[in-house]
This record gives sequence, C-alpha cells and structure tokens, in this order.
Amino acid sequence: METFIRMLKKVKLNNPILIEGLPGIGNVGRVSAQFLIDQLKAEKFAELYSPHFYPFTIIHNNVAEVLKNEFYYWKDPKGKNDLVILIGDSQAGESGGEGHYDIVEKILDFSEELGVKMIFTLGGFGTGEIEESKDIEVLGAANDEKLISKYEKYGVDFKGSMNRIGMIVGASGLLIGLGKLRGIDGVCLMGETTGFPILTDPRSAEKLLRVLMKILDLEIDLSELDKKSKEMERFLKRMEAIQEKTLKKLISKQEKGKENLSYIG
Amino acid sequence: METFIRMLKKVKLNNPILIEGLPGIGNVGRVSAQFLIDQLKAEKFAELYSPHFYPFTIIHNNVAEVLKNEFYYWKDPKGKNDLVILIGDSQAGESGGEGHYDIVEKILDFSEELGVKMIFTLGGFGTGEIEESKDIEVLGAANDEKLISKYEKYGVDFKGSMNRIGMIVGASGLLIGLGKLRGIDGVCLMGETTGFPILTDPRSAEKLLRVLMKILDLEIDLSELDKKSKEMERFLKRMEAIQEKTLKKLISKQEKGKENLSYIG
Amino acid sequence: METFIRMLKKVKLNNPILIEGLPGIGNVGRVSAQFLIDQLKAEKFAELYSPHFYPFTIIHNNVAEVLKNEFYYWKDPKGKNDLVILIGDSQAGESGGEGHYDIVEKILDFSEELGVKMIFTLGGFGTGEIEESKDIEVLGAANDEKLISKYEKYGVDFKGSMNRIGMIVGASGLLIGLGKLRGIDGVCLMGETTGFPILTDPRSAEKLLRVLMKILDLEIDLSELDKKSKEMERFLKRMEAIQEKTLKKLISKQEKGKENLSYIG
Amino acid sequence: METFIRMLKKVKLNNPILIEGLPGIGNVGRVSAQFLIDQLKAEKFAELYSPHFYPFTIIHNNVAEVLKNEFYYWKDPKGKNDLVILIGDSQAGESGGEGHYDIVEKILDFSEELGVKMIFTLGGFGTGEIEESKDIEVLGAANDEKLISKYEKYGVDFKGSMNRIGMIVGASGLLIGLGKLRGIDGVCLMGETTGFPILTDPRSAEKLLRVLMKILDLEIDLSELDKKSKEMERFLKRMEAIQEKTLKKLISKQEKGKENLSYIG
Repeated sequence: METFIRMLKKVKLNNPILIEGLPGIGNVGRVSAQFLIDQLKAEKFAELYSPHFYPFTIIHNNVAEVLKNEFYYWKDPKGKNDLVILIGDSQAGESGGEGHYDIVEKILDFSEELGVKMIFTLGGFGTGEIEESKDIEVLGAANDEKLISKYEKYGVDFKGSMNRIGMIVGASGLLIGLGKLRGIDGVCLMGETTGFPILTDPRSAEKLLRVLMKILDLEIDLSELDKKSKEMERFLKRMEAIQEKTLKKLISKQEKGKENLSYIG
Repeated sequence: METFIRMLKKVKLNNPILIEGLPGIGNVGRVSAQFLIDQLKAEKFAELYSPHFYPFTIIHNNVAEVLKNEFYYWKDPKGKNDLVILIGDSQAGESGGEGHYDIVEKILDFSEELGVKMIFTLGGFGTGEIEESKDIEVLGAANDEKLISKYEKYGVDFKGSMNRIGMIVGASGLLIGLGKLRGIDGVCLMGETTGFPILTDPRSAEKLLRVLMKILDLEIDLSELDKKSKEMERFLKRMEAIQEKTLKKLISKQEKGKENLSYIG
Repeated sequence: METFIRMLKKVKLNNPILIEGLPGIGNVGRVSAQFLIDQLKAEKFAELYSPHFYPFTIIHNNVAEVLKNEFYYWKDPKGKNDLVILIGDSQAGESGGEGHYDIVEKILDFSEELGVKMIFTLGGFGTGEIEESKDIEVLGAANDEKLISKYEKYGVDFKGSMNRIGMIVGASGLLIGLGKLRGIDGVCLMGETTGFPILTDPRSAEKLLRVLMKILDLEIDLSELDKKSKEMERFLKRMEAIQEKTLKKLISKQEKGKENLSYIG
Repeated sequence: METFIRMLKKVKLNNPILIEGLPGIGNVGRVSAQFLIDQLKAEKFAELYSPHFYPFTIIHNNVAEVLKNEFYYWKDPKGKNDLVILIGDSQAGESGGEGHYDIVEKILDFSEELGVKMIFTLGGFGTGEIEESKDIEVLGAANDEKLISKYEKYGVDFKGSMNRIGMIVGASGLLIGLGKLRGIDGVCLMGETTGFPILTDPRSAEKLLRVLMKILDLEIDLSELDKKSKEMERFLKRMEAIQEKTLKKLISKQEKGKENLSYIG
C-alpha cells in the first residue's frame, strides 16, 4: 500500500493557502486548525491514508476508522484566498524519515494540484516553562528570507526562532522546507507552550490564531476556544499512544536546539 | 520479495463472509477461528507469505515451514453464506505500520476476488481483571453505523467498545477500517479476557463463538473447546517469541484507550 | 540499491547441492563451510551485496571491502554432485524480516539458475551448557518429511530438533522454508554448542562436518580444523559488532522454543 | 520520495577527484572539507535530498531548510585535477543499512556522471585518548592494494588502520567499498581524535589537511583553521541531535574493531 489521497468532493479553489495543523507539541497546531475549521464551517473534501501511520483503528462516533489526515476547504467570501486546512489523527509513526518525507511529498503534490502557492504550518514550541498568557509569543520560521519582513509586522518573532528553536521536527518543518524546492512559500508559526505533549494548550493556540487571523484578514470569534479545546483534549488524549514516540523525540530534539548558535556555512 | 498469496486449490464461493482470527490478546481470535475450522472441517485453499513476518522458520509435524497465514473455506450447506476463515502463525512483525497495512491490503485484494462483502474479525479485549465466565462480554466495533443496529441484538456491546476500547491495534482493526474504503462491511468482535498475551483464554473464545454462531446461524458443538484450547495453547506458547513485541504494544496501547472519552471531530 | 549478485566467473555445474554457512550461533555453520572451502580448494565465483547488511566496510588483507556473501564452487571428481558453498561476513542486519527474506530470495533465484535441487544449511544450536565432545549431537530440520528417513541414518536427530528447537531464525531456516515453495529439498543441520555467539566452536563444527561428509560422500582431513578455527575466530571476533544485534535475538528466541510442545494445527 | 540530486549549476570538470567530508567522529572530515571549500572558494553546484535523513528542518541564516548534502566544485588552475567536495548536515539517519547504501549509490552515480575516477573520504578515528598534537597520526584504508604504495609515502599509515580500526562505519567506508565495484579508486583518510562525537577536533583536521594538501598538491593557508573550527563547532552542535544515534553506533562499533586480528579467509 502506498500513501494515497481519497477525494470526497471535487473543488475549485481561488488562490488557496494551505494551513497545516497536525498533532504536535501541546497540540497547539491541531487545536488551532480544528477551531478554524469549526468556526469557518470549512468542509472536508479529501482524506489521506498511509502505511506510515501506526496500524491503529480508532473508534469514534461508534464507527471504527483507520488513522488518517483530512483536508478541509473554505471559500473566502472576499474572493482573496480560499483556505485548505489540513488536520489529522497522527503524523508518520516511525522515528526515521521515510514515512514523514513520503507523506509530506504527497501533501505537496496535492497542494500543487490545488494551486497552493503559500503554506502556513502551525505548531507549538516547548519552552519547558509555564508562562503567563500575556507572555506567550509566536515564533516563526520562513523558507525564504523575503517572507520575514512580510510577516514579522504581524507580531511573529523570526529571529528568536533561529536562536531558540534551531530545528523543527516533522511535517511542519518539512512542508515548508520541501515546499521551497517546488517554489512554494512557507512559514511555520509556533506558539510558545510548556511542552508537555498531551497537555493541550488553548492559550497558546489563541495567540497563534490571533496572529493568523491578522495575516489572513479573517474574523473569528475566539471566545469558545477554551471550551472547545477541553472537548478536543479528550479526543487527543486517546491519540496519546500514537503520539508518544514521535513527540518524545520532537521535544528532546527541540530542547537541544535551544542554544544561541550561528551557522558559518 | 513481496507479500504473496499461494493458491492451493481453486474454489468458487457463494456470498462468502471472511472471518479473521490471527494471533492477538489472549489468542481469543486465533482459538475461535481454529475451533471453527476444526468443527466445520473447513479446508485450506490458500496461504499468505510475507517479508513483514519475522524471519523465523518453525518446525511442526517434523517439517520446517516459514511463518504464514492460512485461508480455509467452508461451503454452507444451507446455501446462504460460504465462509472464508483466516488464521495464521503471526501478524506483521514490525512495530511500524507498513507491514500491517501491506498484509491487510493483500488480504482485502484477495477477499474482493473471492466476492467477500462482509468481514468479521475476532479478537480479545484485555480488561486486566480475571472475570467470572458469566461476566465475560463480547464487545464490538463496526465500520458503519448501520451494522450496529443489525448486530447488537446478538449480544454485542458496541457502545461499550467505544468508551472502553477506543482503539484496535493490528489486523482486526485495519481489515474493517481499510475494508470500509472498498465498500466492504466489517465488524470486529472482541471477547473480554484478562489480557496476559500468552494465556490462551478458551472461555472468552467460547463466548465469542456463541455470538458468532448466532450471527452466522451455525451449529457447532462447543464442548470440546476447552480440551482443544489446551492443546492449542502448547503450540501458541512456541509462538510466544514472535508475538512478544507486537503484543506488548497491543496491550499497552489498548490500556491507554480505556478512558471514557468522546470525540468532538 | 537492490540486493545483487556479482558474477566473477561463469560456471557450469553438475547436479549442484548448495551448502550454506553464514555467521550464526557459535559460528558453527560459518566455520564448517569455510573449512570445507579450504580443504576442497573450492573457488569463489560470485558475490552478493545488499543494502540490508549494516553499512560497514571491513579492512582485511589491507583492503577495504563492504560486507558481502560469497559463493564458491567445487567440481565433484566422482561426477555426482558439484557443490556450491555460501559463506559471508553477515546475515541481514535488521531485526525485522524484510532484509532476511530479500537476501534469501536472491540466493534461491541464483540457486535455481545454477540448477540446485538440494540445500543443506549449517548452523549451531545453543544449549546453554558446555558439553563433552562425545555428547555433541547434530540436530536436523527438513522441509519435507521424506527427507527425514533419508538422512536420519547419518546420525541426524530430526525428532529432537522439533521438541528442543522449535524454531530456526534467519537464513538457515528461510532457505529451506522458502526453498520448499520452489520445490527445492532442504535440510538444516545444527551442531549443539554452548550458545555464546562469538565463542567459535570448532568441536561442534567437527561433528557437523563428519555428518555432512558421510551424507555427501566426501573425504576431508579434519585434523587441521581446530587450528584453522582459532585463526578464523580472530576474524569473526571483528565481526562481533555486526552479529551482536542479530545474534542476541537469535539466541533469546531459540531459547524460548526449547519446550516440549506439540502442534494441534 | 526517492533520494535525489538537485543541480544548481551545470559544470564541466577536468579529471575530477571527489573529496567527502560528512559529519562523523570528531567531525574531522566535516571540518576539513568545509575548510577546503572556504579556502579554495569552491562553488556549490548540486544538493542531495533524501528520505533517509531525519525529518528535521533546520533554521540557519533565518531560513528553514531540510537536511541535505552539498556538492562544491573547484577548478584546478594547474589543469590537473578539478575537485568535487561533498559536505552535508547529516548521514543517513537510520541504524540499518538501507539509507546509507541508497545515498552512497546516488553519490556514486553522480560521481560517475562527473567523470570521477578517484575518491578521498575524510573521517576521524576515535582513540579514546587525548593525544599531543605532534602524536596525531593519519590512518588510511584503500579499496585496492596498489593505492597503498602510492599514498603511504605521504605519511598515511595503512597498516595501522587494519590492525587498529578494522571497520569503517557509514559513508566514508561505503563510498570506497562500493566505488571499487565500479572501478573507482578510493582511499579513506582518518585523523586520530579522542572520539567524543561533538567535540570538533581542529587539530586532527589540520593533520588530515596537511596530508591531503601534499597528495593533491594544493596550497592552503591553515592558520585560520582553529578559528574557523570554533565557529563551525557551533553549527555542528546543533546537529548533535541528528548525529547522536548514528555516532553512538559509529563509536561503539569502531572501538570493538581495535584489536589486532587477521583474516584467514
């Protein structure tokens, strides 16, 4: 079996932007993307299945389904940028690269077919500290320097990300890194969070969403985020077993990258 | 080498139903399927070999054979549903998904060729407790909601399965989850068992078989099950080494899924 | 890169028999096959390279060479059965099955091209005890029952092998198990040895060779075996790193199979 | 996704020699190759991407890039041998062989296209001791005996390498070992170093470069090596997470090979 995308509905999109929010540290990306889907009433139009996910079948809403990623779309009423939002139960289950690269390439193939020219990937950055809401920052990494000046005015800290993060693990990084090789612009936005993998962090998601709303010129009511996050957390806890391996690595690797280091290349 | 199916005999089947009983928790599925084969005098007609099994060659009946899965068939004298029964020495040996997905897809390809429209997968659900025989329940998970009302009248607890199980690991789940994508109906039936991997549980198998007999309108004498189980246990103990890795995962993962959690999807 | 066989010399063989002696427990098979090559002055005619070996390059005779398996041939002066002897630095390095199955299938493809109809695989069986030379037995496993009566008269204990061994791990088992599916007869001969992976056991190899000489009607002077074994041990010790993982598994798995268990299949 | 090479510039090279300096023990090879690139002002003309690298995206110079290897070229003003210098963020991330073999074969395919007939691979050899600068030796391993007499006059200890090293792990060994099968000459040069993976060792690199300069008849000012190494170390520290697994193996395996053993093959 190869990784494949199953179309549920044929869609025609106008200058679409891809927003990725797969499970990760603090589930910041997953929660943000799910909230976006709910509030925008985005519609599912495709699913991705892969042998690189764990061989798990989850039971929800009484029905057994294998692990998958899901693509939702939203038509921009202003006619500027339609959105494609990618969420999912899991990233690739293996610790090696093959599964991750394979799935990300399939997502990029599909994105190109849809006409995507810009990708925002959403994630959390584990600080190891419990911070006051007001102190939570949104860090950014771009796949092209021109994007930094374009987006740092929205309150994204790009310079901090290099010094403090150093390295992004998994789909959020690969999508923009490999996207670059296809001429797709990409920015990874990371909300600071304590870094306990399963402790879903709605406050970090809120900060992330506020930045994203400004960038995309969206109007979303964030008042229900906290409540929604709590419900979502219950589901995500069930995914704990799946995320365990990947996330343990994610964190230990990212922690190590937090030194102020420069590259002499 | 690719996973392949070796035909031993060409068969023509009438509305066949696939019943899977590969090794798993408490060997409930394996024991049930083997007993069904013995009592129905089902005949082997195909074997599946795969590089995703461990590189082990087992010696039984004096002959060395590599690990394999086996397909048996039974012609329904009532002319309603012939049965295809799948048993085997092992599931995929790797902890990642690739081997599991690959083998399950091959089984589904073969099932489609045979005209299978319905799959029952048999397994155990480890409760961590030693229960009285009378308290052993049969839990179920379906790949389509319509199947729940159809089968819960036979004493299958579908609602409990979502709350208590949450997740099925390995072939029993994937067969119905990936079968769904091909339009094949599927139900996973799980007998409660203590959950020690190698402690073969004939009592749980008996409960499972009673439910399955009612569903399939079969008449089988279960009185020999206990004796047969003891013999089978000896064989299955030799498979311990193979099952160890897979099962350790199976259990630890399923244990984690036993919380009462709902999905906000 | 795929596993491939590199021909060094084109040979035409008469009713060839394949003898495999890759590294394994006590290096019994490796030592036996090497001694056979030396004493028969067999000539190397092919090499097998594989990405499933560890990425190691070994330096011997001053030259750096990647890990490989080697095929030697010997023309039987009696015109009965030419021999193909397979030795090597390593078996597949991974713990999963894919590498093992892949390499064994390539060896079988090549064997069929050469006209091989019979395979003897040589190995050790770890007893966990240090036995007197006179007590060292040669156990056997056959891929067809007819072979048992044919070869047990040479002093091979086939019944003991089922009860005590239960399972063969790696190439020695797969070659005869997968060979069977191609209609190639195969017998695995195992000399009892203590079972410390790197403690090369020339006494066990001697017993094995005595049986093999009788079976193949060969005349070889075994007096130098002990000396040669000591030299070989030095080389094999350098391979320790490579064998470590595979052998740890080999042993722990085989130990578990040593119970007197029967199969109710 | 397959491992692929992305051309940045088409080049025509004159009798090119490939010099490999990927990360490894003491980063001796990486530091040496980087310094060579800097001092010769070699120009990047190709990049290699692979799913066998870890799924990491590193942020340097403010830009997020996936792990890659890089090819630089230098036109020899004397018209003798142009150089192709290969450096990179990482070797294959998996402990098994497949990734390593795959990437090395791609490098060799590319080298053949460029007309490479000779390869020097650069690495460190961990002695476990902190040695005086004057005592640091350069050990060598060749893929053909004729190369030993050709290069030992430059101060490379080939005999010591067999007795003390025994085995090379990863790309430095495979490039010359697999290169041999294509008729490409290859020498692996290893500077002695303490063997702490991340403790970049400019003194060992200096010794290595002095030997290489003599061999290649290059004139390079080594006075800045120490300073450059320190800067480089900062970047390489960030790669620590990536190298960890591979290097732990590298060292433990190489340590084991340091006995005085000969091969009776």
